[in-house]
Amino acid sequence: VTRENTKVVLVRRPTATPESGDFRVEHEPVGAPGPGEVVVAVQTLSIDAFIRTILDERAYHRPVPIGATITALGVGRVVDSADPALVPGDAVVGPLGAQTFATVPGAFLRRVDDQRRPLNAYLGALGVTTGLTAYFGVREVGAVGPGDTVVVSAAAGAVGSVAGQIARIEGGSPVIGIAGGPAKASFVVDELGFDAGIDYRGEDVAARLRELAPDGVDVFFDNVGGEILDIVLDQIKERARVVICGGISQYEHMDDVRGPRRYLVLAERHARMEGFAVTHFAERFAEAEDALGTWLDEGRLRVVEHVEHGIERFPDALAMLMSGGHMGKLLLEV
Amino acid sequence: VTRENTKVVLVRRPTATPESGDFRVEHEPVGAPGPGEVVVAVQTLSIDAFIRTILDERAYHRPVPIGATITALGVGRVVDSADPALVPGDAVVGPLGAQTFATVPGAFLRRVDDQRRPLNAYLGALGVTTGLTAYFGVREVGAVGPGDTVVVSAAAGAVGSVAGQIARIEGGSPVIGIAGGPAKASFVVDELGFDAGIDYRGEDVAARLRELAPDGVDVFFDNVGGEILDIVLDQIKERARVVICGGISQYEHMDDVRGPRRYLVLAERHARMEGFAVTHFAERFAEAEDALGTWLDEGRLRVVEHVEHGIERFPDALAMLMSGGHMGKLLLEV
Repeated sequence: VTRENTKVVLVRRPTATPESGDFRVEHEPVGAPGPGEVVVAVQTLSIDAFIRTILDERAYHRPVPIGATITALGVGRVVDSADPALVPGDAVVGPLGAQTFATVPGAFLRRVDDQRRPLNAYLGALGVTTGLTAYFGVREVGAVGPGDTVVVSAAAGAVGSVAGQIARIEGGSPVIGIAGGPAKASFVVDELGFDAGIDYRGEDVAARLRELAPDGVDVFFDNVGGEILDIVLDQIKERARVVICGGISQYEHMDDVRGPRRYLVLAERHARMEGFAVTHFAERFAEAEDALGTWLDEGRLRVVEHVEHGIERFPDALAMLMSGGHMGKLLLEV
Repeated sequence: VTRENTKVVLVRRPTATPESGDFRVEHEPVGAPGPGEVVVAVQTLSIDAFIRTILDERAYHRPVPIGATITALGVGRVVDSADPALVPGDAVVGPLGAQTFATVPGAFLRRVDDQRRPLNAYLGALGVTTGLTAYFGVREVGAVGPGDTVVVSAAAGAVGSVAGQIARIEGGSPVIGIAGGPAKASFVVDELGFDAGIDYRGEDVAARLRELAPDGVDVFFDNVGGEILDIVLDQIKERARVVICGGISQYEHMDDVRGPRRYLVLAERHARMEGFAVTHFAERFAEAEDALGTWLDEGRLRVVEHVEHGIERFPDALAMLMSGGHMGKLLLEV
């Protein structure tokens, strides 16, 4: 069998919003895997905000070199293996990249059980960048407990939608989501069970928050930054925890980030702002998967997927993520 | 005895640096204390940065009303009492205000032992806004432990100079002070025992910090904010603690605060930024005083005082504090 890989490579670093000219679709024959490597037929890619940050030259995660395939997490099936631990047919998850056939060291991949759950669940509810990120952010960093007033930004997004549900499972009440547009603000309530949704595009967030959380906010799970972060900081309680998971509003101008102007409320209210990356909890991934799996089985956790199709649409899917044109977990089936 | 009180009142809210026209010196006769009140002959006032913040209309601490005496902590001696708990001659500390004779409820004051220590020590080493603030900030919020690399901003100031010394007592090593000018950078090393001093006016702080702390910073005790905060954030370690005690660089333009632009490193490095006000630890003041007193007695803690004289110099002393024209604890003997 001669296979052809179709991949999306970076040809130019975007200065703000990525444009189609920043990427190129290339084709190449798929060779035999080297020792320890496997060839994976990619099924689905996880479209994550961190991808935008690694298109910049100066990035925390390893930047994508010019000419290289864009880094992305994905799920797929092994079709050729030179790693004794994996055989053709195995379902795997890992850093497969924006391409249709990934040739990668088997050690970078994890075999998963796609009989028990749909393969895409390993990118969403059980995905490192989604379910696991929300799990550790809400439980460990935010330390959400019974009766805590919790606010989640980007609440209709992948991580936010799971974070809010976990906050409710942990006893947070009320759990308030902030999202862009009335449809998303309703979605988090009607579909995900949040107590309230605020549309930051159409509503006065500060005023709505004062109504919904008159005594202030105990935990803010933030993936947005910018003005939203300042508005919520203004309304935190004493001893509040502000969880910095990300700051998507700043990712297109990382050289000129708007820092939280209201950060001195941390001193006024003996509060903390704490950040994390899910990798800091790597040794506890199994625990998180067990918990998330149980909640899925019990119907207490729901991950809505937005699926785009075709590897050549990777740049569009990334643009959709950055502009919030989706609800729930954004996936690209290649 | 007819006594005359000389007091400094606010006549206009400063827009940036306080000017002499913002204040007026007034005189009034001192009457008899009302029930529960005492009259205190003020000896010394503590010149603290929070005073600048309460000249603004919108302040966290209660703003000073126009026409009112400026709030300030002070020490003095009771000269007349209608509070059975205090008698003339008692040495007291409390919110005496910028004046020579304070008539205040006795319940607001604490009697102190001026036989054992100079009265001014209750504003400095044992002062709520100085020694106690440093104590809780370093120990409880920063959780400085053996081997921690500690950086202190405004290191030659009252709180910073004590914070750095406590960090060393707690095992922090190295303890690095950032201060304005070569004299202050030397002062923190030669007089206070810091391991190193960086002059932010004359040196490249980022470069010096990389030299002095090549593995990064575990604890940053910050009273400055602005650019200094960003430079240090850039060099924090994983699991670092950034203690927000204050942000004096921002106090003259609180409507347009520069937030920490590098705050997303908190997520990269699983670090936290935590603020506090000393009042959050009110129930533990006795413990802190015991510890600080012991360190003073053992010669492990030193508070250098800069003393100005004359109540009419209160505005100048405040301006000196804001511009950093002093070293150590700035006091005004009235």
